Amino acid sequence: MSRPAHRRPEYHKINKDLFVLTYGALVAQLCKDYEKDEDVNKYLDKMGYGIGTRLVEDFLARSCVGRCHSYSEITDIIAQVAFKMYLGITPSVTCNNSNRNEFSLILDKNPLVEFVEELPAGRSSLCYCNLLCGIIRGALEMVHLAADVTFLQDRLKGDSVTEIGITFLKKLDEKKYRRKK
Amino acid sequence: MSRPAHRRPEYHKINKDLFVLTYGALVAQLCKDYEKDEDVNKYLDKMGYGIGTRLVEDFLARSCVGRCHSYSEITDIIAQVAFKMYLGITPSVTCNNSNRNEFSLILDKNPLVEFVEELPAGRSSLCYCNLLCGIIRGALEMVHLAADVTFLQDRLKGDSVTEIGITFLKKLDEKKYRRKK
Repeated sequence: MSRPAHRRPEYHKINKDLFVLTYGALVAQLCKDYEKDEDVNKYLDKMGYGIGTRLVEDFLARSCVGRCHSYSEITDIIAQVAFKMYLGITPSVTCNNSNRNEFSLILDKNPLVEFVEELPAGRSSLCYCNLLCGIIRGALEMVHLAADVTFLQDRLKGDSVTEIGITFLKKLDEKKYRRKK
Repeated sequence: MSRPAHRRPEYHKINKDLFVLTYGALVAQLCKDYEKDEDVNKYLDKMGYGIGTRLVEDFLARSCVGRCHSYSEITDIIAQVAFKMYLGITPSVTCNNSNRNEFSLILDKNPLVEFVEELPAGRSSLCYCNLLCGIIRGALEMVHLAADVTFLQDRLKGDSVTEIGITFLKKLDEKKYRRKK
């Protein structure tokens, strides 16, 4: 999956609407396949995990991110570099505990739901964008950072913002994830 | 689905790899759901049709394409404006008959298969990118242009190029599709 870092950036871009509508078709298909929202959520997370494991190498090559020395730095890179690169948005980051291993990404805008006004009828527990959690989890795991990644708030469920929670599960002195510049 | 035409172009762009991998997950899910390749192909076409009907209005607003006076012109717009806008590629166009209602889009590169080396085992009749045919068909139908859209050749099936055939089904004097500039 490794690709050279020198490809022209515009070659990496496609129209967002095409992606957003295709993602909607994927979610609709899973809702058709699985009766329980929990199963759809799990499956989206699992699919996202697979995508994250494939995206991460290319991300590291193209973003040229260097060593991170804290979970806070890592989360900032996810928000400011990865989200910007892949979805064109930059969530804000908050740290949620004194151990500094629990963070939230707050999404003011969520391009994935641009064509979605509300959750489908009878699907009130659906985490429509759960693919994103899986992608983050998969990408982090590939750099030896085990994490729980879940939606804590979701505008589609009536919350005022959309919030993705990331809890890093290991102590940071396990620095296997570090990459040389 | 109508959106203003003045949004900044870069806001419409996202990373291609994310789309390509998500599309792969969609195809994999359909292969899980449907035993027969023909059913997967039909379903991809149907999903694409729905996406095309939703994309077309935005496309017309943003592309500012004017009146077309021939199927040839229409096909050129699909290749040079729509494919460029949505997938970042420009297929070449050939006309395949003297009635000038059958055309081919020849794709030298197909971003949708960038992560796909070959069709899955036992899936030799799968039209992996059939969503594209559905999108074109759906978009054309929304501007009152009935068309058959199918893959005529596919590199994933060992052909030397990937070729999408478009056959316009009505006489062109039914000019309902015309839009004012």
